[in-house]
Amino acid sequence: MRGVSIIGVGSTNFGILEGLSLKDLAAMACLDAIKDAGIDKKEIQAFYLGNFISGILLGQETIAPLVANAIGLPKTAPATKVEGACCSAGIALRQGYLLVASGLANFVLVAGVEKMSSASTEKNTEGLASAFDQETEAKAGLTFPGFFALIARRHMYQYGTKQEHLALVSVKNHGNSVMNPRARFRNPVSLDEALASRIIADPLHLYDCCPISDGATAAVLCPSEIARGLNSKPIDLLAVAQTTGYSTTYEMEDPTTLVATVEAARQAYELARITPGDVDVAELHDCFTIAEIVDSEDLGFFPKGRGGFAVEEGQTLVGGKIPINPSGGLISKGHPVGATGLGQVYEIVRQLRDEHENQVKNAEIGLAHNLGATGQLCTVSILRRRV
Amino acid sequence: MRGVSIIGVGSTNFGILEGLSLKDLAAMACLDAIKDAGIDKKEIQAFYLGNFISGILLGQETIAPLVANAIGLPKTAPATKVEGACCSAGIALRQGYLLVASGLANFVLVAGVEKMSSASTEKNTEGLASAFDQETEAKAGLTFPGFFALIARRHMYQYGTKQEHLALVSVKNHGNSVMNPRARFRNPVSLDEALASRIIADPLHLYDCCPISDGATAAVLCPSEIARGLNSKPIDLLAVAQTTGYSTTYEMEDPTTLVATVEAARQAYELARITPGDVDVAELHDCFTIAEIVDSEDLGFFPKGRGGFAVEEGQTLVGGKIPINPSGGLISKGHPVGATGLGQVYEIVRQLRDEHENQVKNAEIGLAHNLGATGQLCTVSILRRRV
Repeated sequence: MRGVSIIGVGSTNFGILEGLSLKDLAAMACLDAIKDAGIDKKEIQAFYLGNFISGILLGQETIAPLVANAIGLPKTAPATKVEGACCSAGIALRQGYLLVASGLANFVLVAGVEKMSSASTEKNTEGLASAFDQETEAKAGLTFPGFFALIARRHMYQYGTKQEHLALVSVKNHGNSVMNPRARFRNPVSLDEALASRIIADPLHLYDCCPISDGATAAVLCPSEIARGLNSKPIDLLAVAQTTGYSTTYEMEDPTTLVATVEAARQAYELARITPGDVDVAELHDCFTIAEIVDSEDLGFFPKGRGGFAVEEGQTLVGGKIPINPSGGLISKGHPVGATGLGQVYEIVRQLRDEHENQVKNAEIGLAHNLGATGQLCTVSILRRRV
Repeated sequence: MRGVSIIGVGSTNFGILEGLSLKDLAAMACLDAIKDAGIDKKEIQAFYLGNFISGILLGQETIAPLVANAIGLPKTAPATKVEGACCSAGIALRQGYLLVASGLANFVLVAGVEKMSSASTEKNTEGLASAFDQETEAKAGLTFPGFFALIARRHMYQYGTKQEHLALVSVKNHGNSVMNPRARFRNPVSLDEALASRIIADPLHLYDCCPISDGATAAVLCPSEIARGLNSKPIDLLAVAQTTGYSTTYEMEDPTTLVATVEAARQAYELARITPGDVDVAELHDCFTIAEIVDSEDLGFFPKGRGGFAVEEGQTLVGGKIPINPSGGLISKGHPVGATGLGQVYEIVRQLRDEHENQVKNAEIGLAHNLGATGQLCTVSILRRRV
């Protein structure tokens, strides 16, 4: 296994991006990443593109070669779409990581894209529900707000997590994204506003839920040895672990923990030879506020049941023990589903390059956690700045 | 790079499989392959699943972990869906091949699945068209029969290919699948019947087109060194090459050749250290009869323009110079889109094990050619029996 580095990252803004097609968005992020890497696009040897529901929302499948051709990649470079619901871009990153780490390729482009705003809310609801098992969960009427509401209620029951803990995650993440020009929402939200917002799926209120968004993200990977000569600030990709979790709610022994996260974190820490305490900054999959709390526990930042209290104590603020989602997270930066995993990596890379708009001081090790569906799959990536 | 072998294959029948869901089909093929490999499913370290349009047809995405859980794979095994239109299963095979070849995993399960018959013909037409660029080709009204009809007309104009040549491909493939219990069609078709069938997109008649089908296919891969101790008839996977072609018709300099096939074949022959003349049996992507003719030229079996004449001369029959599609091919065995690439590999493995129902005598080297969309992507795989 060779060391792998990220030498370029690219991203569109996240939000309602009218006038830009799925292909436009993906091309923008990819060209941005290639430019940032300072290499010629003809050097790209493989391309992995994460996307979740462009088939259902836009009637557009087979988008990897479409985007490859749009940006002028070599015809010899395989262009492959990978899909794993909200974890699609995390998977794309992992495929690229494996290709470079194993010595099979030197320069790999990985990306993620989703175009949601041109479809109706009903169509988006239908599309998002396609990540459920249609034969069980979907037939029973489960939605994603419903699923995470069940987790929230159980977490409250088992550990005393409060409604305010959920709302405080939203307050923190909205506060963070005020400084992030890529974020969909840039307005601060008060605790009162969050608590008073309308109920979506009890106990989750509007501000507990991430918004539908358009966006695309990309990164260029290469062997660490080559990276040294190319980029003044390469970021090492120490680990990308991918695991499988339960497909159905009834199989989950304890709905307050997502086993895919626990196992992916274990593998990633082992590969990177670090412990949770070594992480300086993390972007977690806060599709709902309760998810950030559960993730922060499953990743080992806090003991099970203490995630909500840690938020209340300010431990997850920039400047706290472990800053979580300084970008604004899915809640406030936005969640263009297939792009999210590499959006997290984009933010972490900027943190480790010491050039983030909401900088965590002296950040050396960063973690990105990307969750798919009801925890059916997960990637955990660990990045490190060279010191 | 380690040698890679196929130690198990599995397949459902191809056809209208009522009462079996997408998940049922995939699970059947996967369990079949694992049983054939003679290993415990807990030994599987990674799973790649090819699928094209279950999102559009069934509202079901994120199927890789669903299937992994349905068959009881370990939660530590990443389950990843790959999509590249009709080439989806070819891509799944390649991802597994890379993982084993690079030493990153020992036992990898790869599969492909499509469930088409439960959706209407209109929905299937819409779903299949999602492989076109929606901003150009689809808006212009191009369909797949239309695209291959354009190629056929040009091939006729440039090389004198005759309507009868197209029909004879169909006659041959229907004749072959009479013996294949996995085929959707098992009735012979005469030249007169093929020529007299109704026109779909001139010059393509009904019998020039492959049928919508349900089906699933799977294979278990492992290092060749380990394979020796496990299976009495392991088949070596010498190469799986994947390339990118044009996304739009107007970009194609010469529509009688698909550049993705030409380049994938070049790479595969080089990796396998063979020439086209060494291939004893081939399963090609005959989504339409003209495609088989074009493919047979692009793969180097015949000079450009001579593919149709070679069919007329019987060179592609079992017993001919290079038997093509002894399974019946997509035309008569059927084309459950996301499953097709590994269906071809299933047939080739059985040929090289000397246990096919339509056996090519002394077949030692086999080739599988899987094409995606309008030649936007392609995989060429070369398999060899140990002698």
